This record gives sequence, C-alpha cells and structure tokens, in this order.
Amino acid sequence: MTTLGIIGVGLIGGSVARGVRAHDLFDEIVGFDVATDALDLLVADGLLDRSAESIESLARASTLVLISVPTRSIGACLEALARSGRSHELAMTDTGSVKGTVVSAALEAFGELPPGFVPGHPIAGSERSGAAWSDADLFKGRKVILTPTASTSPDALAQVEALWRGLGARVEQLSAERHDRLLAMTSHLPHLLAYALVDTLASQPAPDEIFDLAAGGFRDFTRIASSDPQMWHDIFMDNSEGLIDALDLFERHLRKLRSLVEELRSQDILALCERAKQTRDRHLNRG
Amino acid sequence: MTTLGIIGVGLIGGSVARGVRAHDLFDEIVGFDVATDALDLLVADGLLDRSAESIESLARASTLVLISVPTRSIGACLEALARSGRSHELAMTDTGSVKGTVVSAALEAFGELPPGFVPGHPIAGSERSGAAWSDADLFKGRKVILTPTASTSPDALAQVEALWRGLGARVEQLSAERHDRLLAMTSHLPHLLAYALVDTLASQPAPDEIFDLAAGGFRDFTRIASSDPQMWHDIFMDNSEGLIDALDLFERHLRKLRSLVEELRSQDILALCERAKQTRDRHLNRG
Repeated sequence: MTTLGIIGVGLIGGSVARGVRAHDLFDEIVGFDVATDALDLLVADGLLDRSAESIESLARASTLVLISVPTRSIGACLEALARSGRSHELAMTDTGSVKGTVVSAALEAFGELPPGFVPGHPIAGSERSGAAWSDADLFKGRKVILTPTASTSPDALAQVEALWRGLGARVEQLSAERHDRLLAMTSHLPHLLAYALVDTLASQPAPDEIFDLAAGGFRDFTRIASSDPQMWHDIFMDNSEGLIDALDLFERHLRKLRSLVEELRSQDILALCERAKQTRDRHLNRG
Repeated sequence: MTTLGIIGVGLIGGSVARGVRAHDLFDEIVGFDVATDALDLLVADGLLDRSAESIESLARASTLVLISVPTRSIGACLEALARSGRSHELAMTDTGSVKGTVVSAALEAFGELPPGFVPGHPIAGSERSGAAWSDADLFKGRKVILTPTASTSPDALAQVEALWRGLGARVEQLSAERHDRLLAMTSHLPHLLAYALVDTLASQPAPDEIFDLAAGGFRDFTRIASSDPQMWHDIFMDNSEGLIDALDLFERHLRKLRSLVEELRSQDILALCERAKQTRDRHLNRG
C-alpha cells in the first residue's frame, strides 16, 4: 500500500493531489495544512482521502511525503518529520523554489542528510495561489528539477521521479547551487524587477493616471508582481546571494543599454533589439 | 464622400482598415505602404478599396489620413503630405508611440503646425507585427491618446475622435510632453527592461540551459522583447529623454530593493511585495 502525504495544500500541493488522483499514482493521499478549511475542502472534493492532525501523524501514515509550503516554512516541516521517528523509512521531497537553504534546513533538522530526502522544484506555477486554482495538469510538460544530495538513496530518488513523471513532468537533476544560480536569473530576478517597477509607478504623484495608461505589455510584464507576497519574500530571503549576483549582472547590461539610449547610438540599439527578439523567439517559441 | 487614407498597413494600420470596414465608418479606404505585397493582400481581401502609388496621390484621394508607421518614419510621411499641396484641406493623424518628436517633425515638414494635424497614439498593440495579425477589435475598449497642438482645428479633432470612437476606443487628450513622460514609465521602460533581461541571459556561458529553465513568469515578463525591433529602436531614440528619466527613477527603487535583499530586511521585503500585489491587483484587475 502506497500513501502520499502532502504537507501544504496550496496551488502546488493541491495540483499534485489532483494529478495523483487523476492518474491513480498512489493508493491513498493524506494531507496536512495549517489552514484546515483548505484541507476540509479537498477532503470533501475527494482529492484527499483524509487529513492528518499533525505532520507527525501524516509521516506515520505515508510512504512518500511531499512538502509544498513557502520555502522558509520547509525547515519547520522537516523538524516535525524528524520528530515523527519515521524519517529513515520515508521518502521525502519538497517543492521549494530555493534549494540551498532547504538542504541546510534538512541537515539541521535531522543532524545529517537523510537518504530518503530528495530536494525538488517543479518549474510551474502561476501568479495565483491557493488550492482553488489547483489543476491536475499544472505539471504536464513542465520541468521538475531534483537536487539530490550525496546521501540521497537511489530508491527515494526513483520514488520522487516516478511521482513527477506520473504527473507528466520532465525530471532533471542539478546541484542545489547551480539550481539556485540559474533560477535567480530566470525567475527570482524577473520577479524582483516586476515588484520594483510596480513600486516605482505607485510612488509617483498620480499613480492612477499612470496605471490607467498601462497597455498589454505592462500587464504581462508585471503579472508576476501579483504573486503570493509571502512566497516571494521567502524566495528573496533564501536566495539573496544568487539574486544579488543576478541583479548586479543585469544592472551592468542595463547600464550599457542606458548609455546606448543616452548617446542615441541608433545601430547598436537596433542590433540589441533584434538580437533579443531572435533569442527570445528561438528559445521560447513565442510562448 | 469620405475617404480614409492609411499610410503603413502593419498591425495597427491593418487593424484600423479592418475595423473601419466592419463598422462602415468611411465610404472608401485607400492604402499606401512601401511593402506593396502587404498592400496587395489587403486589397485582395477587400479591406482596402485600392492602393495609392504614392503618399501624394493618397493625400489627393483622402479626407482623413492616418499615418501608422514606426515613429522615425512619420517625418518623411508628413513631408510627402506637405508636398501633396492638399495638407490644408486634410485631417491628418498618426499612431506613433512618441508624440514630442512627431510634433517637431510636423513643424519641420509644414513650416508651421497645420490645423488639420492631430497627433495620436492608440494604447494597443501586441508583440506581433504585420497586417497578418490585424484585428478589427484591436482598439475595442482601449485608450487612444490624442495630443492636439495649439493649431489643431476643432473639425480635424472631431474627425479623428470619431474614427477611434467608431472603432470602440476611449479617446483622451494629453499634452505631448505628458504623454511621452507617462508612456516612458508604463511602456517604454518595461520594454527596455525586458530587452536588457534577455540580453543579460543571452550573454551567459550556457544560455540554452538558462532559457530552458524559464517558467511562465519569465515568458510573460519578456514577451514584449519579441516586439518589432525597428519600432522599439525608434521609440527608444525618439523618447530617449523620457526613457532615461524613467529608468533613473526605476533604478533608485531597484537599488532600494537591492539593499533590502542584501540586508535580509524581512519585514520591509514582505511589505513591499504585499504593496506591489495590492497596487497591481487594484489597478489592473488581474488582467
């Protein structure tokens, strides 16, 4: 009998429950969340077989535990798993957007890195948060990065890979360090820039008039600033070094572009716009 | 008999033709474009009654002329309209994203600001360019900013307002200066940031691996970097001062955010993320 225990039933945890149910990947799904109303709703909808009263009791009922809470709450979940006394029998994974701090938190919680622990990060999500937006197909065709530690057992890794593959995701492995450095550039930095832009405009004398003139491009550009503040607070805090490095790199390119505009260097500006369009179109297929 | 003359049948000009036809706003539509294949296609599709061989002949056939070409080509169009000898009988408008340089170009082309000239800018568009993407409803519910000069006649203003209202747009008036300052913040700066971000990532040692990790947020954020390079080159050149001012303002806010992250100021980061989300959700309704 296989039982998936899900800690945190927001957009990600709820979507995993929905997908596992849809594809019949586990015999049973048990959930835990500090927000009991979200839990009750998912039980009523038949997405969870039952809710656990604590992380400890969830651990005792599960064969694989998925932690899908904001990154800075993962440590407390790992500590509760350690207290359950079952962590050596469990496969455990998480969905945090930063991996370095999660590995540190695991080391602290367990006193060593447990063989059953497979840090992970599904590159999927939305500016919408909460189980109400959950979607069985959220991970279909998306990448999930696993960052196994030196202690991770092949068996735990296989269980976690099977979960994500079963949900339609493509699983890849990276080191935690490389993951955090790359995600700083593709995800954390764009979020920081979107927050900074909205903050800039909101600080102007007549912000209503300004936002009123926003066209589709601005909406797209700042959509991610509507993401869950707690989640992004945690990511900025946990990957502050990677983010600062990415930001400094970006600022060097921005200053270069600033001087092209200031000096009206027509050919260079056109070349940069053309290169950026080609690059984005090639890599992202107008997606 | 009313005839609309459209100079430049790309996404905007093509969409105007489509909408004017759909709502029967003019007796006749005549087009001119240096790309004659685009013109021929629109004539074949019945969206244009005929194509003109030159801007001068288009001017002689029209009662209202719409110039929808990249901003730095508007001056040459205005000069051709001046040469037609009919500019004193015509209402003329444009769709350029920068208005200060268009007013200067008109002054230079005509020797004075003609009463028939009503500078304009529809706040609509797409990262897609070309008449193939044109859409009769592109302007429906969108804002069109008109920046009439001190010389603009009430009659010309009324004709241009009627055109945009007939296409379903909401028409507002601003000074050219204020338009350029506001659009620098809501449109030109976000485009510059998107170009700078794509340029930053493309300059990294393994750009393929980086873009491969891009999730939905990054796609949204950088979609505008897939816009027409010539158009954005022109905008950056023509509104360089407004853009530099907006960029410097943004960079002050970005540096503030950078130090919050570097100093791990948890409460301040959370407050900023919450404020940005509230601001964006309130103004842009999760659009």
